[in-house]
Amino acid sequence: MSKEFKQELAARANEVEKYLKSCLQLEGIPGELQEAMKYSLMAGGKRVRPVLCLAWGEMTGASTKDILPFASGLEMIHTYSLVHDDLPAMDNDDLRRGKPTSHKKFGEALAILAGDGLLTQAFAMMLKASFPAENVLAAVSTVAQAAGPAGMVGGQCMDMRATGQESMELDDLKNMHAMKTGALLRAACCSGAILAGSDPVKGKDTCNAHNYGSNIGLAFQIVDDILDVTGDEISLGKPVGSDESVNKSTYPRFLGLEKSRNLAQTAADEAKACLKDYHGPGREFLYKLAQYIVDRAS
Amino acid sequence: MSKEFKQELAARANEVEKYLKSCLQLEGIPGELQEAMKYSLMAGGKRVRPVLCLAWGEMTGASTKDILPFASGLEMIHTYSLVHDDLPAMDNDDLRRGKPTSHKKFGEALAILAGDGLLTQAFAMMLKASFPAENVLAAVSTVAQAAGPAGMVGGQCMDMRATGQESMELDDLKNMHAMKTGALLRAACCSGAILAGSDPVKGKDTCNAHNYGSNIGLAFQIVDDILDVTGDEISLGKPVGSDESVNKSTYPRFLGLEKSRNLAQTAADEAKACLKDYHGPGREFLYKLAQYIVDRAS
Repeated sequence: MSKEFKQELAARANEVEKYLKSCLQLEGIPGELQEAMKYSLMAGGKRVRPVLCLAWGEMTGASTKDILPFASGLEMIHTYSLVHDDLPAMDNDDLRRGKPTSHKKFGEALAILAGDGLLTQAFAMMLKASFPAENVLAAVSTVAQAAGPAGMVGGQCMDMRATGQESMELDDLKNMHAMKTGALLRAACCSGAILAGSDPVKGKDTCNAHNYGSNIGLAFQIVDDILDVTGDEISLGKPVGSDESVNKSTYPRFLGLEKSRNLAQTAADEAKACLKDYHGPGREFLYKLAQYIVDRAS
Repeated sequence: MSKEFKQELAARANEVEKYLKSCLQLEGIPGELQEAMKYSLMAGGKRVRPVLCLAWGEMTGASTKDILPFASGLEMIHTYSLVHDDLPAMDNDDLRRGKPTSHKKFGEALAILAGDGLLTQAFAMMLKASFPAENVLAAVSTVAQAAGPAGMVGGQCMDMRATGQESMELDDLKNMHAMKTGALLRAACCSGAILAGSDPVKGKDTCNAHNYGSNIGLAFQIVDDILDVTGDEISLGKPVGSDESVNKSTYPRFLGLEKSRNLAQTAADEAKACLKDYHGPGREFLYKLAQYIVDRAS
């Protein structure tokens, strides 16, 4: 299943990739800023957030073509967060996906500005989505909340504070990850359903997307922590063997490897259960994705 | 006129001030991040961008109460730009309005995150404006374009590149300022009119707001440059006598003081001409504001 699924994931990511390439061909952006923004945006990655948004949109009634610009905005937000997190004052990483990080390649000032530019341009793009204005407003609001100080930015702040400390509790760890990476993954799923017309608060599809996103976010993070220990792959986060993996609070550290694997499987199963009312290729893809996340760690 | 006008400006700014105080009382923001965001947001300033948005909205038919959350978002975007511009890798400023800059007070990591948090939260707030969804979408889009890589972020990038160089042409200087500070001032005016119902592209009020904003932006910058030379006040930008004022491209450097003053007055007059079709207190305020900007330098 895994190889076939990887091909489908790559095919879906490829749609996003093509769109992203065209995104930053905007007039009036200084050349070096454009270059720095593109460098990080086109540096690879599984494009998980846009793919989630597209699949949830597809499954709940919106066309891929219409959602693509919005979904690509999610990748720009994810990319900005990586560029800023890599900065010397933050995680101080020299490499990202095997290439020099933005500040190593372009200097710190341009890296900060490239991140700021990606974040702001993401909103400009998402706001142009071809859906009823109410749906677009609600979807962009969902993403803004998730990416902001009570979401992703807040999570990074908690992570910075925790670095070097050994005393983080399991609940704090869960909360930190739910904000740092979980919130945007969840918003990616929800925004697809909201664009397709689901009520942002009470809509059944929005609730299912929310629960699916929370659970795969949790599974993702546990598996990342497991791979950080067993060391054969990385996906969401830090290079294996980076300074941070020493003394870092992780799921295996709290629960051991076996219990961590079980917790990840439970989360994946709960994610799958959120799909029971749907059908079609989007549903199949999301079902397999939940299992794929866990299979990476076994 | 000046003293009376200053009181009116302060009274209008005070409305914004009160709203801003309540803005960041959000659940789920880590305490230190919330503190850093508030520290910079509540550090004073004339609140020119929100006041412009409110006055244009008022003059074209929207209530102050309804526009206030949106207008406050503009101040959060302005504040984030100051926090990031002050960073060691950028302008490396220790003081801002007589107080330690964010990174001096909280460290670089938290300053970067406070800026990121303010920018993202600004979008979350603006998207909640109580106007028809189409108007809100168009207004937030206008701001996102203005604040992004083809606007404010791009202008800061050009400014960074120009620092230390003596060879900037007058047209480059104009273009850089039009992006770095002009774009958001213009968007502040336009978004007020757009929220009130003016078409974002072809609306007469939007066009007038656009031209008014461009002209006061230009006047503002010329006057800032003049004050940088004559040294009695600062408003938009850098502390007098900071490293940058040496060898910096400025209007007086290109044109001399007298011609610079004349150019600022011409811009103010053109701004006033954009108001000829309006009446009421908003109109009076905007008219006086245009002249007030120029009078600061005489």
